[in-house]
Amino acid sequence: MDNTALIIVDVQKGLDEPSWGVRNNPDAEQKIVALLAQWRDKGRPVVHIQHCSVEPDSPLRPDRPGCEFKDEVTPVAGEAHFKKSVNSAFIGTGLEDYLRDRDISSLVIVGLTTDHCVSTTTRMAGNLGFDVTLVSDATATFDRAGHDGVHHSAESIHDIHLASLNDEFCLVRSTEDVLSSSGS
Amino acid sequence: MDNTALIIVDVQKGLDEPSWGVRNNPDAEQKIVALLAQWRDKGRPVVHIQHCSVEPDSPLRPDRPGCEFKDEVTPVAGEAHFKKSVNSAFIGTGLEDYLRDRDISSLVIVGLTTDHCVSTTTRMAGNLGFDVTLVSDATATFDRAGHDGVHHSAESIHDIHLASLNDEFCLVRSTEDVLSSSGS
Repeated sequence: MDNTALIIVDVQKGLDEPSWGVRNNPDAEQKIVALLAQWRDKGRPVVHIQHCSVEPDSPLRPDRPGCEFKDEVTPVAGEAHFKKSVNSAFIGTGLEDYLRDRDISSLVIVGLTTDHCVSTTTRMAGNLGFDVTLVSDATATFDRAGHDGVHHSAESIHDIHLASLNDEFCLVRSTEDVLSSSGS
Repeated sequence: MDNTALIIVDVQKGLDEPSWGVRNNPDAEQKIVALLAQWRDKGRPVVHIQHCSVEPDSPLRPDRPGCEFKDEVTPVAGEAHFKKSVNSAFIGTGLEDYLRDRDISSLVIVGLTTDHCVSTTTRMAGNLGFDVTLVSDATATFDRAGHDGVHHSAESIHDIHLASLNDEFCLVRSTEDVLSSSGS
């Protein structure tokens, strides 16, 4: 695991705005912090992805306080930091080159939101040939309505997206499972 | 609409194998044929995407009959055809260059499956800056179980994935809506 990168996607203050809707898994940040602590303790690569929105009304615009990382995941010296303006952390960034240059072929992905930026980043990572673990309880999303007006709960969206991603783009595992298998 | 490309993803014989599971929307192919007929009638660009699997047991391996396009969507002269081996039609293919070279900025995406190759292709298309319409009833998927063993129906997966994609990566519209607004 020593060269496995922890990729933390969009854990930013602006995602606490009520306008996003009802979120599932309020413990996601706590799980991310536990994984980050282990990665730092072992000296493994950590990559922070920050969404810098170009949408006029987004709380994640770079000129707004919501664009800041949440305090508990603020990068420290030596950790990589990429800014993006679309969902995939691989589009418009140097992420792929950064990983290839360091012979990093294995990724553990966590962050927000399950079905938007986490899913898109996981899909591209898998399709680009990286060996990806997606941590089921270290990600979360918001409820949404479809184009037909039908409402879907955050938990249903989360669960179904994990099912679609597992075994096709990544392996889905729990924080506990990742911590225990990679701690020694 | 004259320079809007119809992108038909993975409508191949091997996806009729029972091993994929229970599928929703058996009418997807009929809707795709109706869209294809209008695109051909109007002389608009049509792009066929063919999955050529590198998985040992896949019916979509290029040396197997399942890799063939379904008869009703077989390409005709003048239509583009890209082969891929991962979910995204933009990875390992010339699709993006093909579209940019022809100043095609608007795409209508249909095909199989909603949550794997159609979703991944729609996400990348949107993130690469294309204006994407995803046709709700011209795509379909299969039921799946999550990493936790929980079963999800094809219809639930389909509906939730469309809800996650709509207004973030694309606009989701029905075949009837696309045909009526683009027919004249």
